[in-house]
Amino acid sequence: MSALDLPRPYLLFLADVDDPRYAKTAQGLRDWVPEQCIGEWALPGNELRLGLVELDPAAAKARGARALVVGVAPVGGQIQSGWVPGLIEALEAGLDVISGMHTPLSGIAELAAAAERCGRRLIDVRVPPSDLPVASGQPRSGKRLLTVGTDCALGKKYTALALTRAFRARGLDADFRATGQTGILIAGGGLPVDAVKADFLAGAAERLSPAADPDHWDVIEGQGALVHPGYAAVSLGLLQGSQPDVLVLCHAADRTWVSGYGPAFPLPPIEEVIELNLVHARLRKPGARMAGISLNTSGLDDARAEQAMDRLGARLGLPCADPVRGGERFETLITACLDC
Amino acid sequence: MSALDLPRPYLLFLADVDDPRYAKTAQGLRDWVPEQCIGEWALPGNELRLGLVELDPAAAKARGARALVVGVAPVGGQIQSGWVPGLIEALEAGLDVISGMHTPLSGIAELAAAAERCGRRLIDVRVPPSDLPVASGQPRSGKRLLTVGTDCALGKKYTALALTRAFRARGLDADFRATGQTGILIAGGGLPVDAVKADFLAGAAERLSPAADPDHWDVIEGQGALVHPGYAAVSLGLLQGSQPDVLVLCHAADRTWVSGYGPAFPLPPIEEVIELNLVHARLRKPGARMAGISLNTSGLDDARAEQAMDRLGARLGLPCADPVRGGERFETLITACLDC
Repeated sequence: MSALDLPRPYLLFLADVDDPRYAKTAQGLRDWVPEQCIGEWALPGNELRLGLVELDPAAAKARGARALVVGVAPVGGQIQSGWVPGLIEALEAGLDVISGMHTPLSGIAELAAAAERCGRRLIDVRVPPSDLPVASGQPRSGKRLLTVGTDCALGKKYTALALTRAFRARGLDADFRATGQTGILIAGGGLPVDAVKADFLAGAAERLSPAADPDHWDVIEGQGALVHPGYAAVSLGLLQGSQPDVLVLCHAADRTWVSGYGPAFPLPPIEEVIELNLVHARLRKPGARMAGISLNTSGLDDARAEQAMDRLGARLGLPCADPVRGGERFETLITACLDC
Repeated sequence: MSALDLPRPYLLFLADVDDPRYAKTAQGLRDWVPEQCIGEWALPGNELRLGLVELDPAAAKARGARALVVGVAPVGGQIQSGWVPGLIEALEAGLDVISGMHTPLSGIAELAAAAERCGRRLIDVRVPPSDLPVASGQPRSGKRLLTVGTDCALGKKYTALALTRAFRARGLDADFRATGQTGILIAGGGLPVDAVKADFLAGAAERLSPAADPDHWDVIEGQGALVHPGYAAVSLGLLQGSQPDVLVLCHAADRTWVSGYGPAFPLPPIEEVIELNLVHARLRKPGARMAGISLNTSGLDDARAEQAMDRLGARLGLPCADPVRGGERFETLITACLDC
């Protein structure tokens, strides 16, 4: 059972944010769960469009929307005061309001009062449940894949989503298990592991991918990296509690140092990152294995991307593919994941 | 700067708990910081005594006490309703009240009201500060030692305290840095790392042992174990943020499986635990080294304890001592810690 179970489908709120770089949540929802996106709603004067039907809250409600999602995140990650009337309009139209911002929705008094008055919910997807246990460490049935990384922000969520879709396309029973805000909105549930108290982190991961049918796959969105100066603990708790059978290591072709930390923080050799992940994974699941590499080649042209995948795959002796590029390489990676 | 800075000296409150096994906090304070313990106070009918002066709150205040510490922790870790009048008496006598229980003191309405009325503080040492940063990973001056373990509850706090005392006895400038409730009460400050949100754990550890004089030692109380099924994430965040120069591995001679988890959870070979700790430590501090083993031999008689320390030390090629037994072996371990 997941911690969060979100009301869907959604109306995507773009507010007054016209820079698409700050609309990644809305774009992610449009790209990965278009069937859950009834429409988009920008405030007057905002020209940003995602290509969905433009609807205000009342119209979205009439078409079946159950919640408005704040689909934009300006620098600082705060709900802006200019958005509050729009959020209240959504509550009054009968929609719940969902946010992945750092500011809790219920901390805005006007909004809390409106939700109370309308009998609607304010849902913060960054808030974990309060009843998480310490991990039991007990093995559980079902198959699990976890995406791990050499760093943050290089494709662990995307890779997990693409693998889930590919597993399903091969007729397998597979669920994407979300651990971050955008992933949770896409999945309609999940657990924001980075906000869990450290003692309960592995327990949260156990709850996120519960015992399942022996042939069922949970494809779990990784977080951070075991070698990251800031977020290693998150990665380890998630790895231990997930008890993955299969790991896929995500890396970016042009990444040489820790993102946001600078050249004084070079990434360790990929071989060492693989070994470290396997050592920790095998403490909980002795047969855990690294199936291959998901290489983010978005910074490279086609020829150089092919070359980078060839070279890294040969060096490591593992399938290496960019899920965004797909193709034969990605099929090989998928087969390697399932080959157990 | 530590997160918590506790008012001292203390009056130790034994409440109605007469089983010494549940008075470990009070015993730890008496044993490690007797100069900070003005007296002890048991409720009428409780026969438990620690050997300190028996004082009620008013008498303790008159002798200079600044806070009453809840020195007992019954099963479940809750403040009992029968203790509340005593806690209010302390507030009225002009003492702050400090607790390491799971129940926050301020959650007890009567107590909150009394503290407000008396202008006194209710201090929960399990509550971390709310402004912790993500770790910067930047190196900082000063020397650091972290006690790590093969499991929970086998002497990491005791070892760190004994080493701090020994370093000072050798004329060194050393501080014990506390990471758990009893340690925090002993030190008069610290950071309860296990209650920190995972994203900020390494940042909390950075704050706990800030930049210091090049010859200053911070001796940091470890938590959990990197190989523990429940608490590994806590251990890793603390290890990364502490950036220790020196590690001391704590183990218990008679421990073969994870405490509380049972024989299905055997401890990995000590060599593997050492290697894993060093791999992680060297990501942040390339010269980090394992100085030796603190072996808890409390379950063994003298002859078998000596044999166990001989055998393990020879196997690992490292000094091996039980700080509780002290002696030459412990002196050798201390020297090995400082030999850098």
